[in-house]
Amino acid sequence: MAARDDISAEERLIARYFRPLATHPGAFSLGDDAAILTPPSGCDLVLTTDGVIAGVHFFPDDPPESIARKALRMNLSDLAAKGAKPLGFLIAVSLPAGIEEKWLAAFAAGLGEDAQAYRCPLLGGDTDRTPGLIAVSITAVGAVPQGKMVRRSTAKAGDCVLVTGTIGDAALEVWLRRDHALTERLRLPEPMRAHLRDRYLLPRPRNVLADAVRAHASAAMDVSDGLAGDLAKLCRGSSVAAEIDVARVPLSDAARAALAAEPALLETVLTGGDDYEIVLTLPPTQLPAFGAAAQTAGVAVTEIGRVSAGEGVRFLRDGEALTFAHLSYSHF
Amino acid sequence: MAARDDISAEERLIARYFRPLATHPGAFSLGDDAAILTPPSGCDLVLTTDGVIAGVHFFPDDPPESIARKALRMNLSDLAAKGAKPLGFLIAVSLPAGIEEKWLAAFAAGLGEDAQAYRCPLLGGDTDRTPGLIAVSITAVGAVPQGKMVRRSTAKAGDCVLVTGTIGDAALEVWLRRDHALTERLRLPEPMRAHLRDRYLLPRPRNVLADAVRAHASAAMDVSDGLAGDLAKLCRGSSVAAEIDVARVPLSDAARAALAAEPALLETVLTGGDDYEIVLTLPPTQLPAFGAAAQTAGVAVTEIGRVSAGEGVRFLRDGEALTFAHLSYSHF
Repeated sequence: MAARDDISAEERLIARYFRPLATHPGAFSLGDDAAILTPPSGCDLVLTTDGVIAGVHFFPDDPPESIARKALRMNLSDLAAKGAKPLGFLIAVSLPAGIEEKWLAAFAAGLGEDAQAYRCPLLGGDTDRTPGLIAVSITAVGAVPQGKMVRRSTAKAGDCVLVTGTIGDAALEVWLRRDHALTERLRLPEPMRAHLRDRYLLPRPRNVLADAVRAHASAAMDVSDGLAGDLAKLCRGSSVAAEIDVARVPLSDAARAALAAEPALLETVLTGGDDYEIVLTLPPTQLPAFGAAAQTAGVAVTEIGRVSAGEGVRFLRDGEALTFAHLSYSHF
Repeated sequence: MAARDDISAEERLIARYFRPLATHPGAFSLGDDAAILTPPSGCDLVLTTDGVIAGVHFFPDDPPESIARKALRMNLSDLAAKGAKPLGFLIAVSLPAGIEEKWLAAFAAGLGEDAQAYRCPLLGGDTDRTPGLIAVSITAVGAVPQGKMVRRSTAKAGDCVLVTGTIGDAALEVWLRRDHALTERLRLPEPMRAHLRDRYLLPRPRNVLADAVRAHASAAMDVSDGLAGDLAKLCRGSSVAAEIDVARVPLSDAARAALAAEPALLETVLTGGDDYEIVLTLPPTQLPAFGAAAQTAGVAVTEIGRVSAGEGVRFLRDGEALTFAHLSYSHF
């Protein structure tokens, strides 16, 4: 009979790699069935869940630390767009048998770095062996003053449409990694490739802008499935239309270079997703104050169009409305 | 160019199968990036996450409705053991390409049935296609009066150890389904097999007992990884020892019949897990009141041993301490 394992290998693994991340007192160092969270008084909790699967949301040879950080940041991005302050997160990790401790150590290190940077400690988790692929599912919890979560459904005709950061970088990187002929054709200089790679591996959720979004936006959502499709969801939810001036959609130098060489990539830029920027609407009167807040926070924001009565989103280039095969990334 | 899909297939799928379950007003009919939850005043939130993967936690041909219900019930069981009242849950579902809508419809129907029965509505979710296997990850949120979550780490020497329901049924079912020779040898009558199958497919989380656990237990946890290992965790967390009288561990008729034919199965019964019962400790003075509450709730509870000073859990049979190869199920 084998030696008694009073402490199972699963417990040891959790203790070694995940317990150090559970800095929230309500996480009980992951030593209980559940975590507690005493909600900040006068606040609503904001809950979101998003995950990644190898081969779908990341390339299996992506660095483990960035896989972890991206999975957390996808959720932080939802909280940012809703004007919420992160309180903590729970994680479910499924690991194939071949995964080495080294991989897990790097994964946990990346996760811990971001948990600290975004003040979003680990509250609880679930680790499983899977006969399938690496999968990570995260649920993040945030707080907003009661009744103040920024919705998708509250945009008004006449509002300006704004977006943070730049659009399309991550989607271009995915395209380039899958299409070597295209990569050869574009021959982007290495610093530009590095920029796209970084934008794909490490989204920059705009949590520093959460308070400003809550103070000024009439509606907001995070851009994860593509600007075109996500804005369509926002407009549908708000029963309004929008017109976007494609020339004003903010692009990185790398994206501009890619588009100059291959104009058809515009569809990838506008519908590919994985941006983790915020698209928001606000009354024109709020524009100066929001702009000032964004500048203070160090986040670029760009006005790209207007909300109007009606339905549908039109992306206008030289006065012509673009048509897309698909507005956004869909898993089904 | 394909027709514009203003509404993606993913959105349609969510709208058809999951939106009807999102009865909580803060779920916004799954039409936003996040859900809100206004915490009951004077309460702590209790958060737990647990999931299932095909081939690990369920057999791929298990009925989809029971897979869904089991995944939710695993989380409800954690809330019950912590003395918490369910408020809602978030779900992440990964579906291989081959899954038919029929499967998904049954899955959602089962989930909805339990969400209603346990008053635990869907708050939000995430659906993905996976090149791997079906996987479901759930995060459940509950509430307890502030500071009143029942911990694992607060058992005291002199306390009684109790367990709800019966132990070992689900683990026996898994064993029988994997070992046809054993099944042949045991030849359990069909009603007994049906009982084990039902206990495996549909755990019965003891949420009706949550208030009584909170009122009377000194410590509690749910039995999911095996009574022996889970009780060892509780004792380690509480820095106490326990002695369990194996003859008093509550068994179903089916489990008794299996053990009579194959005494070696006792280890499976005590360490196999998947029970989703509650193991708890309480001072002897609380025994009558807790017993009465359990009777009112219609849940069998059985005293199986005592907590003492020291460390380790001893399972005594005829005065001899049993030894096990493994105290509990471990994924690693």
